Amino acid sequence: MSILVVGSVAYDDLETPAGIRKRALGGAAAHFAASASFFTNVRLVGVVGHDFEDEHINFFKSRNICLKGLKFVPNGKTFYWKGRYGNQLNEAENLETHLGVFADFKPSLPDEYKNSEYLFLACILPELQIDVLRQVKNPKFTACDTREFFINGEPEAVKKVMGKVDAVIINDQEARLVSGEWNLVKAAKYIRSIGPKILVIKRGEYGAALFTDSGMFCAPAMPLPEVKDPTGAGDSFAGGFMGHLARTGIVDEENLRRAVIVGSTMASFHVEDFSLDRLRTLTWAEIENRMKHFKELSHFEL
Amino acid sequence: MSILVVGSVAYDDLETPAGIRKRALGGAAAHFAASASFFTNVRLVGVVGHDFEDEHINFFKSRNICLKGLKFVPNGKTFYWKGRYGNQLNEAENLETHLGVFADFKPSLPDEYKNSEYLFLACILPELQIDVLRQVKNPKFTACDTREFFINGEPEAVKKVMGKVDAVIINDQEARLVSGEWNLVKAAKYIRSIGPKILVIKRGEYGAALFTDSGMFCAPAMPLPEVKDPTGAGDSFAGGFMGHLARTGIVDEENLRRAVIVGSTMASFHVEDFSLDRLRTLTWAEIENRMKHFKELSHFEL
Repeated sequence: MSILVVGSVAYDDLETPAGIRKRALGGAAAHFAASASFFTNVRLVGVVGHDFEDEHINFFKSRNICLKGLKFVPNGKTFYWKGRYGNQLNEAENLETHLGVFADFKPSLPDEYKNSEYLFLACILPELQIDVLRQVKNPKFTACDTREFFINGEPEAVKKVMGKVDAVIINDQEARLVSGEWNLVKAAKYIRSIGPKILVIKRGEYGAALFTDSGMFCAPAMPLPEVKDPTGAGDSFAGGFMGHLARTGIVDEENLRRAVIVGSTMASFHVEDFSLDRLRTLTWAEIENRMKHFKELSHFEL
Repeated sequence: MSILVVGSVAYDDLETPAGIRKRALGGAAAHFAASASFFTNVRLVGVVGHDFEDEHINFFKSRNICLKGLKFVPNGKTFYWKGRYGNQLNEAENLETHLGVFADFKPSLPDEYKNSEYLFLACILPELQIDVLRQVKNPKFTACDTREFFINGEPEAVKKVMGKVDAVIINDQEARLVSGEWNLVKAAKYIRSIGPKILVIKRGEYGAALFTDSGMFCAPAMPLPEVKDPTGAGDSFAGGFMGHLARTGIVDEENLRRAVIVGSTMASFHVEDFSLDRLRTLTWAEIENRMKHFKELSHFEL
């Protein structure tokens, strides 16, 4: 089943302890789509400017990502972000942000997208997320992300979105901020009380936690000898998570746990190279191998 | 089989978001011993002053902890520490430290302790750790902890100890500091290259990672709705880890993984109340139940 993702497509200037990259393909929807494309067909709704290069169009096409919903604005520039990571690699210092054409982004879905069964609302204004939810007819499974900026600026709108989706996929800082609870169990309880049955809290190098009616599931992140660039790892996680659900069409506890492992697997590859470059060479055999590695990493017998 | 633990016994004044406790029983060896005592006989080598109260002697005795190696110094005071935790609960602000009789601590083992099969060198001066290693004859399994203060002050002595034990049990900050590597996989590789076949890196609320010749194992921490006091959680982990190994007498990959879960279980109880108070009422049934909960928390099928 197809996944529709709505969010940013960007150019990133990146600086990490592993090096520097300029005008690397980025943006939440780009990272998500590239990751999810390993599992199912992906439809991307976003906006880019006149500076968006054929090379990156071709990359999306090579991953079978449908671009009918990607709007080209000839008199504007693509969203640009410049960030720097220190040794800890867990938080970027924002050096520069130019929203460009993304500032006026009003997602309008092509008619054929309106029957999408899986929908991921990447990090955009909560009002736009709600508008997209209105446009999609009877989706089977919906999920959203958000960010501190929106939680601080429009907490009620953010919560309104969370009340309308099946799953919320956010990081631990965001979970704490939106709930006003430092303790993650309490934060999860609060967020799920707003509406979403499913909550995934991403914890960076520490893995991810899934909260459902059945309880909690904690998955480790794969300890890697080198992380080159963490940008987009969370979106890549969401892409693997949603991709697995859409591929299998099953949303139950066992498959949600598996989806967390798939998401963790995709994120673990994502950080091995800059931008989404690692996904350019990634194979299905590598994905399956790493999933087995995750099993070995966390398996024990009582 | 008996475990010998050498380290501090202290009085702590504690301040956490859950409240304040004065003159609570503390010290690495006390936390470790109380935890390990659920699994096997424990022999405690340490030192206390004239102010050490019968109540706490009786607590140790109630846990079947042998105190023949606990030295009483009539003209000195017990090690005192005052600390405060913020909402994050992961690092204490040191408000006051008075080493008292601990400043002149020279561990001298009673003869009957010298054949101890399991030895845990809690956090004391590395020279003293080496001295204890010399006093114990042919131990079956030895492990050590350390702390930033010693790593910064005497890095070579710390590494010398690590080169002489079977297992090193430290937290992530310590692992990074002793190895000079931020990346945990590289840090683990470096530390194991010094000598210890087994390395456990404690990650607080994020769980623990085990590194052996067989690879890596990552265990989550139990997400709890309330953490009252994290003091001694790491020592309680080590007590459960070593306690399980000593109780079963088996040191192989499968049992080491189980030991990490036992350690995580004991630490998860430890933080539910101040000092080591939770262990006063803890039952074997509760331990077994929580271990099953750990299994549910981390189990998935591919």
